[in-house]
This record gives sequence, structure tokens and C-alpha cells, in this order.
Amino acid sequence: MKVSFLGLGVMGYPMAGHLQRAGHDVTVYNRTEAKAKAWAGEYGGSHRPTPATAVEGSEIVFCCVGNDDDLRQVLAGKDGAFQGMGKGAILADHTTVSAEVTRELAALAAQKGLGYLDAPVSGGQAGAVNGKLTVMVGGDPQTFAKAEPLMQSYGRAVTLMGPVGNGQLTKMVNQICIAGLVQGLSEALNFAAKAGLDGNKVIEVISKGAAQSWQMENRGTTMLEGKFDFGFAVDWMRKDLAICLDEARRNGAPLPVTAIVDQFYQRVQERGGKRWDTSSLIQLLANP
Amino acid sequence: MKVSFLGLGVMGYPMAGHLQRAGHDVTVYNRTEAKAKAWAGEYGGSHRPTPATAVEGSEIVFCCVGNDDDLRQVLAGKDGAFQGMGKGAILADHTTVSAEVTRELAALAAQKGLGYLDAPVSGGQAGAVNGKLTVMVGGDPQTFAKAEPLMQSYGRAVTLMGPVGNGQLTKMVNQICIAGLVQGLSEALNFAAKAGLDGNKVIEVISKGAAQSWQMENRGTTMLEGKFDFGFAVDWMRKDLAICLDEARRNGAPLPVTAIVDQFYQRVQERGGKRWDTSSLIQLLANP
Repeated sequence: MKVSFLGLGVMGYPMAGHLQRAGHDVTVYNRTEAKAKAWAGEYGGSHRPTPATAVEGSEIVFCCVGNDDDLRQVLAGKDGAFQGMGKGAILADHTTVSAEVTRELAALAAQKGLGYLDAPVSGGQAGAVNGKLTVMVGGDPQTFAKAEPLMQSYGRAVTLMGPVGNGQLTKMVNQICIAGLVQGLSEALNFAAKAGLDGNKVIEVISKGAAQSWQMENRGTTMLEGKFDFGFAVDWMRKDLAICLDEARRNGAPLPVTAIVDQFYQRVQERGGKRWDTSSLIQLLANP
Repeated sequence: MKVSFLGLGVMGYPMAGHLQRAGHDVTVYNRTEAKAKAWAGEYGGSHRPTPATAVEGSEIVFCCVGNDDDLRQVLAGKDGAFQGMGKGAILADHTTVSAEVTRELAALAAQKGLGYLDAPVSGGQAGAVNGKLTVMVGGDPQTFAKAEPLMQSYGRAVTLMGPVGNGQLTKMVNQICIAGLVQGLSEALNFAAKAGLDGNKVIEVISKGAAQSWQMENRGTTMLEGKFDFGFAVDWMRKDLAICLDEARRNGAPLPVTAIVDQFYQRVQERGGKRWDTSSLIQLLANP
């Protein structure tokens, strides 16, 4: 199938590669064109200098950029994708953005006779490289049915969560869980260290019971070692938490601990931890 | 082996039963004697009206009571276990108490020529009934080696965590993890409901990734349904968190979110939720 991919960051680059390797005819666009050239050199697809030209003739246009403003620009801005897409084509957005901008752009797409799916992912860079992302999709079932087989090329679990916006809202639930959980784990592991316990032995024992979590099993040891130079960066987490807190103002859900943890992440940023993994919250406790 | 078990609450009753069924000669004591009679009727062991008489001739005395004061009373009080235990016998305490009282009673035991193990458990009533508890033990290796095979009769994982007190400290790490984690999960699932998402579908999707936890998998659905009439009670959790917060004052570990969650549990108690499961934190958010 002729498709396009807009945005070749740490996620988009390998995702677009999976589509090309799965036998699709992929044309890419990236703000920094050198990366688009490198991608075409590596995978053998095409590249174009603007979103509008990159999407010409494509049945589905995938997109993974930075934030709300980037997304508005690449879709609805000058030379944006919506200018080049043919009637009946589908825009599938993998960026984590607000439900608000999603509904705004989906309405604009509908006016132009385009389908729209919001499809944020989790699983990080490793999930994108290995084709094992969790994809949380919002949109109508017919549109989803067309895009879903292609998303399988980089997705381990691709699920329709309801109408447009529900993909983003599901991703927000995921991030809210992680905020409180990582803070609790940080307080616990720092307490273990202060109490003179063997932290790794503690993790081994308590990960068999009610305190168990993916974060404990995958980040516990590196947290104890103070290693944060990898994983999902604090800057990205704060972008996501801002979206969560903003949406909660609208729907009225109280987020007392999420709001505090967002403040803690601000302190991590101030300490130079903008690119540190989300698990770096423990650093504030270990070295207050 | 001739052993004793002091304290036949929801945990101790089945634990003592496992010991008797494993072929040991168990004598029990319980503050309310009727329950000790019922136990002996069910399992075929003996019972005595005081700790001091119940421990006579036993090589190992197990104990599982309520809190620091109960433990002091049953071990070092009038007609307490220490009065009846023979030199070289071992006291293995399964109560979750402070590391402080543990060290105090272990020192007293040493003066009397007795061995001492602190061995708090996790896994709840179901774990006790099914013999699948996690047992976190503090004490010296020789003493542990004698008691460990008997603990296996109700333990799925029995681990020596270091010297006396380290069992309790490990249990504290476990409870600190759970406090932050359950609050994060509560904020997330309540947000999902407010956002109009299908909460169970959200759990199914996000439990495959970085937000996954035992609590999400085992409590997520009941939290969405507002069912809390089971599990580890808020009263017990507050007892444990008081121990954690107190110990943290001594070792200097900051517990900002744990302290707030303890306050939230206080509000759950005030609402009549003293016996509700720990996952009832979501109730404060759903019905503020």
C-alpha cells in the first residue's frame, strides 16, 4: 500500500522502517531533511521536503512529531499534510498530544473528507525498534480496520479504545499510573538503602507479591545504582503530565499525587536531568 | 518437632494449621480461648490458657499478634512466652511491628539464652490459607536454618534478609511501594472513568507495559466497581504506615507521598472504611 510517515524521531524512524520492510511503499518527511535522506538510504523508501508533497497519493498517512504545536503545523500549517491528502485518505497520529488538539484536528480532517485516528504508543524506543509497541487508538471502527494491519508491523498490541480522543485519554491513564508508582518505588528503594538493606535482594523478594510492578522489575536495580542515562526522558514525561493535568481540569478528576510528582520532575529538570529516565525521581530523595 | 503458635487471628489460625498438618506437634495460645479450642478441634493439636504454659518444651515458638504492645505483652508480659521457653529455644515472630520493638525483644531474648527471628509476611489471608506467604526474615543464619523448614509449610518464599530487624524493614519497603502505587492507580482509574473510557479495556491494554502492577491486575476491576469488602484492611495498612513513617524519622529517608497517602487512608477510615481493602483510596477521588 502507498503510505507516508511524517516525523522521523527516535520513535518515527524505526516505525516507518517497519512499514517499508512489511512491503509497503513509504514516503517520509522530516523537519531536518538530512534524517529523511538517511532513512531512505537505509530502508529504500522515498522522501519529500514538505508534508504536503510527502502525502501525495497515500492511502494512509502516519505521523509522530513532538507536541500539540508541532502536530498543528505538520497537519494544518503551510504545506501541511491536509493540503496534499486525497479524499478518503486516513491520518493516523502516533504523537502523544492533548485530547483537545486531537478533536480539533479530527474535525478539520472530517471537513476535508479525511479519516482520522489518534494512536499514541507506549513501549519506548526499544519497543519501536523491536516492533513491539502498545498502540492505543481512538477513531471510528471502519477507519481503524483499514489502518490496524499496518500498525501491526510495529505494534504488539493495537487496540481501538473508542471514538477520536480515546487513544490519547488511554495514554494519559498510563502516564498517571506511572507517576505515582515510580514515586512510591523511589521512596521505598531509598528507604531500603537508608535502612542498610540489600536493595536487590529486597526487590527479588517483594516483586513476588502485592508491591510488584514492571517498574520495580525493570528499573529497580538501575535506580539503586543511580543510573538514569536511558529510557523515557523526564522532559517527555513532563510534557505528558501537563496534558494529563490539563485534561483533568476539564473532566474534574482529582490528581493530587500526580500534580506533586510533576513538581518533583521539575526539580529533576533543574538538576540537569531533562534527559534522564523517568525513574530518576529517586535521585531527589537520595541527594536532597 | 514440638512447637507452639501464639495468636490465632486471620493469619495465625491457618499458619498454625499448616504446621500441625506438616506433622509437627503444635500447642497454641490465643487471647480469646474459644478460638484456641476451635483450632485444636479442627487440627488436632493442643491449647493452653497462657503463652508461658503454651510454649513449655517447644523448640520453636511462632507468634502472630496485632501490634507492638500486643507483642511485648505476649512475649515479655505477665505469663509471657519468655517465662516458659527453655534455653536454646527460638522465637519466630510473624507480626508486622516496628524494627525498634523487634530489636528490644531480640535483646531480651538473647539475655535469656533464646534465639529470635523477626519474620513478617505478605500475601494476606489467602496466602496464609493456601500456604503461599512471602516470609521476610531477620536474624542470624544458624537460627534461621532451624526455623526455615517449618516456615516452608506456609511460605512460598522464605528469605533471610540480614540481622534481626531486617525482616521488618523489608516489609516496610513493601508497604511504601504499595502506598504510592495504589494512589497512582486510583488517580489513573478514576481519571479513566471521568474521561468516559471503558476502564477494564484500559487495564487490559496498559497492563502490558510500563504501568503494569500486581495491584492493577488484581485490584483494577474491583476498584472500578467500587468493591472494597475484602483484602488487606485500611486499619492494618495505617498501622504499617505508622511504623514506616516512624522508622523514616530515624533513618532520614524522605517519604513525602507515603505521608500524604497515610492521610488519605485516615479519610477512608473516617468514612467508615476501616475494614475496606487498601485499594479503597479511589473512593476518595470518585466521591470527594
